[in-house]
Amino acid sequence: MSILITGAGGYVGQELAAALISSSPDITVTVTDVVAPTIPGSEEHRGRVKSVQADLTSTEVVDGLINETNRFDTVYLLHGIMSSGSEANFELGIRVNLDATRYILDRLRATMPGVKVVFTSSLAVYGPAQPGFIIDETNFPPVPASSYGSQKLIVETLLNDYSRRGFLDGRCVRLPTVTVRAGKPTQAASSFASDIIREPFHGKKAILPVSKETDMWICSPYTVVKNLLHARNIPKEAFGESRSVNLPGLKVSVQEMLDGLEEVGGKERRALVEEKYDADVDRIVQGWTPNFNTARAMKLGFSKDVPMIENIKQFASRFG
Amino acid sequence: MSILITGAGGYVGQELAAALISSSPDITVTVTDVVAPTIPGSEEHRGRVKSVQADLTSTEVVDGLINETNRFDTVYLLHGIMSSGSEANFELGIRVNLDATRYILDRLRATMPGVKVVFTSSLAVYGPAQPGFIIDETNFPPVPASSYGSQKLIVETLLNDYSRRGFLDGRCVRLPTVTVRAGKPTQAASSFASDIIREPFHGKKAILPVSKETDMWICSPYTVVKNLLHARNIPKEAFGESRSVNLPGLKVSVQEMLDGLEEVGGKERRALVEEKYDADVDRIVQGWTPNFNTARAMKLGFSKDVPMIENIKQFASRFG
Repeated sequence: MSILITGAGGYVGQELAAALISSSPDITVTVTDVVAPTIPGSEEHRGRVKSVQADLTSTEVVDGLINETNRFDTVYLLHGIMSSGSEANFELGIRVNLDATRYILDRLRATMPGVKVVFTSSLAVYGPAQPGFIIDETNFPPVPASSYGSQKLIVETLLNDYSRRGFLDGRCVRLPTVTVRAGKPTQAASSFASDIIREPFHGKKAILPVSKETDMWICSPYTVVKNLLHARNIPKEAFGESRSVNLPGLKVSVQEMLDGLEEVGGKERRALVEEKYDADVDRIVQGWTPNFNTARAMKLGFSKDVPMIENIKQFASRFG
Repeated sequence: MSILITGAGGYVGQELAAALISSSPDITVTVTDVVAPTIPGSEEHRGRVKSVQADLTSTEVVDGLINETNRFDTVYLLHGIMSSGSEANFELGIRVNLDATRYILDRLRATMPGVKVVFTSSLAVYGPAQPGFIIDETNFPPVPASSYGSQKLIVETLLNDYSRRGFLDGRCVRLPTVTVRAGKPTQAASSFASDIIREPFHGKKAILPVSKETDMWICSPYTVVKNLLHARNIPKEAFGESRSVNLPGLKVSVQEMLDGLEEVGGKERRALVEEKYDADVDRIVQGWTPNFNTARAMKLGFSKDVPMIENIKQFASRFG
């Protein structure tokens, strides 16, 4: 069983690769990113991971990675320029998030037709909803309020059509804001949701660019990785007319995140978070909606998230 | 005032060009298609129409058509491989419907930023809804059940983002099935809706490939052209967060169309329609939904359609 993960240098990609190789001795994983990703996992499993440096905006590079002699059973597409990044640099965002991804889909279709593709989409496919309105997959049209969300939605639309036609077997999972991410701050507008927990645990200051009253739709990395593993095991027939799913998450206010930091990490760590409003970040974040009904995800067998205090404790015990 | 119409060899493009030049002596129109379009309109106005043969899948050709020295005030994008055509030939459909259109948007953005773009999308962006469910722009997500619908939705998503960023000023009008079209049968799965009226008026047989009980969401060409003219006059601020609008139409069963044919054209013409089920056409047509609430279109000043009998009478008096 051979699996490819793009964008695997990121925190979620690393955790996913580690989880895959430890889940079965029959699984080998190729991890790729613009910089050759660290090989994750424990010593005993690492021999089954191959790390490949690849600029996916180069068609030659993609041809070298995906071809008849280099087959995969499942491909996880995690690469991308994140929300603030693709808002700041439209050309780069669309090249990486749309063009590179589409070329990969076409190469997969040509060289390993019908292969399973798990695409990490985002709650950012949705624009703002009326306060209190609860979104599910059937009652609200995605009208993205960012280029990032637009590009995610376009890939979903392509992958749905490719799946309907039998070119590929796509699964588009719309991730909540993943927090607490280890590693470094990212170019996601939501980066602060991890920063305000992670940085204080490392004794560093963190900036809070939005109001503490902001509600967010979040999920722990543990649950996200569990659900990414699950995504490839769902029979394709279970999806019906759309391959897109809003993954489970929790609606949590920034104030509750700060309270959780203080409860697990103490007052000194809480004091390291500095409020400093950023209009660009706030505009993107306020364009998202925190109210989701995830009945469809539950029916497809995805897992609920752990309580946020549990999430922070797990982060603290591993990385704090 | 200089206006470009792509796909202008088709019936709607011809009618639109004629309506534009007769609406004001200050308007000049460039009509383009893979075959140089007929110059429409009455003798006195035809001097203000330029016909250009252009294969829009060629970037050199698009560069020649759209550049700094050839500016337009409004661009109508009507070109495209229609629903059955792009279902039968995926590569051709995506090249014309998506890639050529995107390249045009990028050229417009580069050479005449902020220009008005009226894009003819389709009810085919929606997949099937529950029987009786009434769709508006806010209560139902587009999940296309055809490659044509997917490609239309992708262009809408791009044009929405381009408009949000100020690159272009887009207006995506989702057309009902346009009937009665003069001219020839097309590669639209809905072609029969015109064929079963037009062909009998020309003394020819027509094939009905779906059940007579099928309800369709239709609009007369007269109203569609009127609404395409209106689309460019709406202040962009009126659109809010989405540039996409479901245009007004009528829910009409195929039986009612046949009754209308008999009422206007008599029993002999009605007898020229032969029922011959076509599973491919039926699958696409049954994937559409005939129930729309067009309050948003009405609020934006678009016009209601005329009764279908009126529509058939107008066709008969002009082309019958």
